[in-house]
Amino acid sequence: MSAPAGPILVQKFGGSSVANAERVRAVARRIVGVHRQGYRVVVVVSAQGDTTDELLAKAREIAADPPRRELDMLLATGEQISIALLAMAIHGLGEPVISLTGPQSGIYTDDMHTKARIRRIEPARILRELEAGNIVIVAGFQGQNSHEDVTTLGRGGSDTTAVALAAALGAQVCEIYTDVDGVYTADPRVVPEARKLPSISYGEMLEMAHLGAVVLQPRSVEVAAQYGVQIHVRSSFNHHLGTIVKEDAGRMEKEMVVTGVAHDMNCAKVVLMGVPDRPGVAHRVFAALAAEGVNVDMIVQTTRATDVTDLLFTVGSDDLERAVATSKAVCQELGAAGVHTETGVGKVSIVGAGMASNPGVAARMFEALAAEGINIQVISTSEIKISCLIARDRVADAVRAVHRAFALDQPQTAAASEPGQPGQALSGSRIPESA
Amino acid sequence: MSAPAGPILVQKFGGSSVANAERVRAVARRIVGVHRQGYRVVVVVSAQGDTTDELLAKAREIAADPPRRELDMLLATGEQISIALLAMAIHGLGEPVISLTGPQSGIYTDDMHTKARIRRIEPARILRELEAGNIVIVAGFQGQNSHEDVTTLGRGGSDTTAVALAAALGAQVCEIYTDVDGVYTADPRVVPEARKLPSISYGEMLEMAHLGAVVLQPRSVEVAAQYGVQIHVRSSFNHHLGTIVKEDAGRMEKEMVVTGVAHDMNCAKVVLMGVPDRPGVAHRVFAALAAEGVNVDMIVQTTRATDVTDLLFTVGSDDLERAVATSKAVCQELGAAGVHTETGVGKVSIVGAGMASNPGVAARMFEALAAEGINIQVISTSEIKISCLIARDRVADAVRAVHRAFALDQPQTAAASEPGQPGQALSGSRIPESA
Repeated sequence: MSAPAGPILVQKFGGSSVANAERVRAVARRIVGVHRQGYRVVVVVSAQGDTTDELLAKAREIAADPPRRELDMLLATGEQISIALLAMAIHGLGEPVISLTGPQSGIYTDDMHTKARIRRIEPARILRELEAGNIVIVAGFQGQNSHEDVTTLGRGGSDTTAVALAAALGAQVCEIYTDVDGVYTADPRVVPEARKLPSISYGEMLEMAHLGAVVLQPRSVEVAAQYGVQIHVRSSFNHHLGTIVKEDAGRMEKEMVVTGVAHDMNCAKVVLMGVPDRPGVAHRVFAALAAEGVNVDMIVQTTRATDVTDLLFTVGSDDLERAVATSKAVCQELGAAGVHTETGVGKVSIVGAGMASNPGVAARMFEALAAEGINIQVISTSEIKISCLIARDRVADAVRAVHRAFALDQPQTAAASEPGQPGQALSGSRIPESA
Repeated sequence: MSAPAGPILVQKFGGSSVANAERVRAVARRIVGVHRQGYRVVVVVSAQGDTTDELLAKAREIAADPPRRELDMLLATGEQISIALLAMAIHGLGEPVISLTGPQSGIYTDDMHTKARIRRIEPARILRELEAGNIVIVAGFQGQNSHEDVTTLGRGGSDTTAVALAAALGAQVCEIYTDVDGVYTADPRVVPEARKLPSISYGEMLEMAHLGAVVLQPRSVEVAAQYGVQIHVRSSFNHHLGTIVKEDAGRMEKEMVVTGVAHDMNCAKVVLMGVPDRPGVAHRVFAALAAEGVNVDMIVQTTRATDVTDLLFTVGSDDLERAVATSKAVCQELGAAGVHTETGVGKVSIVGAGMASNPGVAARMFEALAAEGINIQVISTSEIKISCLIARDRVADAVRAVHRAFALDQPQTAAASEPGQPGQALSGSRIPESA
């Protein structure tokens, strides 16, 4: 059998796609189908199902705050189990296959254990194995630092592994298989009439991910944008085409002003009350939060009196405890009145590359919320998104109202393609047919 | 804190010693105690409890006969989990520590996946970590081949890892922690009055291990003998001194003719009946068995008539199926009458370096068995052991009778030390005090 000389295709399967033996075999059949079409296939896999959480629980049984290097040594086993099992399943189907750990795949990272960043990829071994005709199975989420110690890339890191490999190998498309069909105009569990988007720009996808659509790790989208790798987000449970994440060039006039509605229940509000109103105070607060690794999202400052101000910001619920501790310490230093928190809040956002040049979009969103009697606590805007913090128990109503207000259930007229004919939007990409 | 410059001590902990978080912490305390005495400590660990079996079950769910390279990729994760957890526990006790996989430890093997042999050890990384003051935790059972692929050393391979590391690092003693107190004159579950041996020679230990005492992997004893590494077999559940495996030089006159009684229930008898009695037949049979990887133990040939003979041998129960299939094929080729098997058999053996020069030892053993009315089916002898195949349901009686016949419950008079004062037998070794 001669080695395939076809284009390189990178596919990534998440933990739920390989959660048990049956699913591993299903994924193997899919990979083999594509390989038999002539593609040179590189597959990135995550740890099975809840393996990573189980390993973390093992660590916590031993130590409250284990050294991060050893945590990486532990966590890296999850993906190593997946690649071995998937390789066994593909071998069972009669195709040549080899599994490689992150270090074996030439994935070099910095030293930041548990949240390392890929520095470079030396794909010599992968290319050699492809040359030999093998399907190559790569452990996602991991690499090695300059000491040859294994590192991990943080939650969702396998997405970044896959996109970075696609870039290093010159693959045009990186397929990311997940348990959803693609990127929707809103969460279909909240808005039943939400539409799957045939394509979305890198920038929009970044905002969608940051805003809690939870489909791709943001860093993977950044890498894809940087190297021009198209990401095809699709389901591992069917053969439908999903959503292509790519450069914005496709749409000439951006009739589709708003691409989708995102929401996030996992946030909390922190208010530093009676902070002295003088230069450098905000810096002091947010530098302290950054030093503790707290990701701050929305920030609002309102002057309450002549010499004091209230400083309001939102954080992810996971970061709340550290945010409050840090804020209290800073308040004491600054002589501020105190810290107030609120957890019953949620965020609704509209995202769209055409927004910046289309006045009236924000107004239409606020109108939709007002018509539902929903009070807006905080507003934050960027070139391609507008977010509103509201009461958490009104978030679902808000998403539906905004989705309706922008007619997102209606197919868009211009370059965006009709639903049911997503192939149109994918022209120019080399997408393997469903096996 | 200055780096310790004391002697290097290699310790190995088996799977039951690190089966859960509590035991991992207990092992960590023991290691830290020795490190604080000034030893430079290198620890080899096996996979926790039943991890290896669980991983094998995962593989079997996917494929009946998975590729061995991928099996090694899978199995190696078991030890990687152990080393990370143990390092976390030691770190929690405030000592500097680092875990290393087999490949990171510079353990190079041949290409025989799932039963690789260590070719060489390049301990530069281990020495560097010791230099830095770290306790070094090494994953047992694994190494890498010349392609930088992970390999495993077969069941019990962690023993060999530990002894080979001790040799490479110039350590005088390799402590092997297990769930028994040391090597006994017989299995204490069968013979309550069995005595723990303060020391035993490499040769005796090899026979004991081969005969089913199941304490050390035979290859580890071979490596220890070759490099003069003393093995201290002891319990991880208490601080008693165990049994030292070392060269035989200690005993001048070998008063202790018989060291111990071993038994093995895990064997089966195969008889090739009516085999043509001509040169080359035995070679044909046993070459075919060897090619299938069947380990043959006892062999007896008896002439039944002028031109045909019965060829009898024993194998481990695990190998029986393959042994029978191979034997049937060979019988057909040779025109032999057929293959008969018997599984209700067991083996009782006496082992002792002084046996060869002491006539009458065999006779005393046979007499003890006869007095119990136990029929001997097969006898096999070597320089330092005599084995008898008997009915499996009489094995326990046989072990007790033979143990009594050689007065093994009585302390020996000469250089072998008194029970309760095992320190004497250990003089000349650098054994760390129990922490």
